Amino acid sequence: MQKCHPERSRGIFETVKLMNKPKLIVYDFDGVMTDNRAYIDSEGREVACVHRGDGLGVGIIKKLGISQLILSTERVAIVARRGEKLGIPVIHNVPDKAEALVGYLSDSGFEASEVMYIGNDVNDMAAMSLCGIKGAPADAEPEILEIADWVSSKNGGFGVVRELARILSEEAHG
Amino acid sequence: MQKCHPERSRGIFETVKLMNKPKLIVYDFDGVMTDNRAYIDSEGREVACVHRGDGLGVGIIKKLGISQLILSTERVAIVARRGEKLGIPVIHNVPDKAEALVGYLSDSGFEASEVMYIGNDVNDMAAMSLCGIKGAPADAEPEILEIADWVSSKNGGFGVVRELARILSEEAHG
Amino acid sequence: MQKCHPERSRGIFETVKLMNKPKLIVYDFDGVMTDNRAYIDSEGREVACVHRGDGLGVGIIKKLGISQLILSTERVAIVARRGEKLGIPVIHNVPDKAEALVGYLSDSGFEASEVMYIGNDVNDMAAMSLCGIKGAPADAEPEILEIADWVSSKNGGFGVVRELARILSEEAHG
Amino acid sequence: MQKCHPERSRGIFETVKLMNKPKLIVYDFDGVMTDNRAYIDSEGREVACVHRGDGLGVGIIKKLGISQLILSTERVAIVARRGEKLGIPVIHNVPDKAEALVGYLSDSGFEASEVMYIGNDVNDMAAMSLCGIKGAPADAEPEILEIADWVSSKNGGFGVVRELARILSEEAHG
Repeated sequence: MQKCHPERSRGIFETVKLMNKPKLIVYDFDGVMTDNRAYIDSEGREVACVHRGDGLGVGIIKKLGISQLILSTERVAIVARRGEKLGIPVIHNVPDKAEALVGYLSDSGFEASEVMYIGNDVNDMAAMSLCGIKGAPADAEPEILEIADWVSSKNGGFGVVRELARILSEEAHG
Repeated sequence: MQKCHPERSRGIFETVKLMNKPKLIVYDFDGVMTDNRAYIDSEGREVACVHRGDGLGVGIIKKLGISQLILSTERVAIVARRGEKLGIPVIHNVPDKAEALVGYLSDSGFEASEVMYIGNDVNDMAAMSLCGIKGAPADAEPEILEIADWVSSKNGGFGVVRELARILSEEAHG
Repeated sequence: MQKCHPERSRGIFETVKLMNKPKLIVYDFDGVMTDNRAYIDSEGREVACVHRGDGLGVGIIKKLGISQLILSTERVAIVARRGEKLGIPVIHNVPDKAEALVGYLSDSGFEASEVMYIGNDVNDMAAMSLCGIKGAPADAEPEILEIADWVSSKNGGFGVVRELARILSEEAHG
Repeated sequence: MQKCHPERSRGIFETVKLMNKPKLIVYDFDGVMTDNRAYIDSEGREVACVHRGDGLGVGIIKKLGISQLILSTERVAIVARRGEKLGIPVIHNVPDKAEALVGYLSDSGFEASEVMYIGNDVNDMAAMSLCGIKGAPADAEPEILEIADWVSSKNGGFGVVRELARILSEEAHG
């Protein structure tokens, strides 16, 4: 499979035509669905910033018949709330993402080769390496960009999922 | 009507002189009056970020005798609060914006040809297509930019309404 | 007095040497000490975002013996809280800034010619026009940039006061 | 020691090979672990915005056997909460950072020459000058950039510690 990076963004669409359509997309939360920043107050409460376009993108991808999952090591309930609003399952508060993903695939019956994983930093590396298709936001860490099959033109939290929805949709419809 | 895009921003003013002055301006909320991001906490509460210049812009447009309306599919009360502060009506929590807009126009007596609609993503497409004048923030999705008569030089949440107020004001006064 | 704009930023220091040292600096709050954005929740509560460098700048300017004042039309208590933390007076919730400023100058004994006013939009125009020295953030509205004697290289909320403190300090010490 | 600035970023790695590995890294909080902005509400409560990549970076640096400390003049409890989450000590609410640092070094037994200090503004100058290695975010004030041995390619709050972790890690492993 041909790799696709932002500086060759005309190539995204060609690449995707070559890409097997995923049956499941797994999203890291922080740095993919957010800009990797956390707002904290004096009592340690946290707030994260998500993107409405991504919410719309999750809906478009659902209509294409592709399953979606959020996978996060963080224990904060924000991830669970976001999954509820988007209507997709969430696995959070897991120390080892690869182990958690293997368990999920075993329970749900998806083959790792059918899974697209979108991650942004080295704590995604092991889980991402298991999956058939690897994606990353434009501002992911170098190790992740190195192994990514698809790199979004958007930074994390600024519409990565919205862009993926457009690509998968164009692939499906034309 | 001549289309106007940011890269030809000198053309904005000429375009507007050709534009019929709208009698009603309808704003999508997320992505137009905000940057399309939502801040969420561990209990699912949401915060949105609006622009004070847009508040000032809404006031300028009022003085020009043009009606204004915020139209949002989201159910969050933030939109209602913003409308109250700005002193303009709000329709929110509607699954179908086009249907809601048709109802509003029927009740209020505005002709669709007199309405300017500012939207940013495909869920605005149907409602926007009904309206005589179509506008969009600089960072709207490609489908929306394609049909827009006016594209702001500002991204959503960074003064789109303030800029529109300036243009309508210059049109009105000189 | 020579005007100074960001694109000629080498000229800032020369300009300031020509500038009479102000005895009082008046800051608009939104768009000068903030980026002109307001975070709002579902109950209409507001949050604004200020800059720690500006806090440090206010302290440096105090040590130069220059008085400072925040002047805002908004009624929100955020402005008052910020003034308390910075240890400078605040006038807020005033419909007419020019009138409020004239009253303050009359009470405090400052001459308008000794006052520097930093503003960003047309609701600062009348008050700003009264003052001997006019300043603006880089992203102020065109009408304000037009009359400004000094334009910061920083956008509102990103260190305008910190930069002014540096300039006044270099003027005082070298 | 050779100085390293962002515009010569290819030089970062060479520089670091020349740099003695620090035994302790001291971080200023605002402007280093945050973007120097503070979100404030009408009751004067504050929120700061930190970076998840920096959290991961602190963990990587711990595994290299390097101690870490956050040092802040601010009294807000946010800094304490962040230190708890990262599992590193915090000194906050100190008027004089240099004095506080000297006390800490005396108690902990580190030599100032073994300490790397990352700061961003003039209130870090005295403490920073005591330390063997000086670092700064890309958007630090000019006085700080002037004395810095290492300048991150990232602005404060956008992954300065994550980048430092990468450099120290490559130094240690290759």
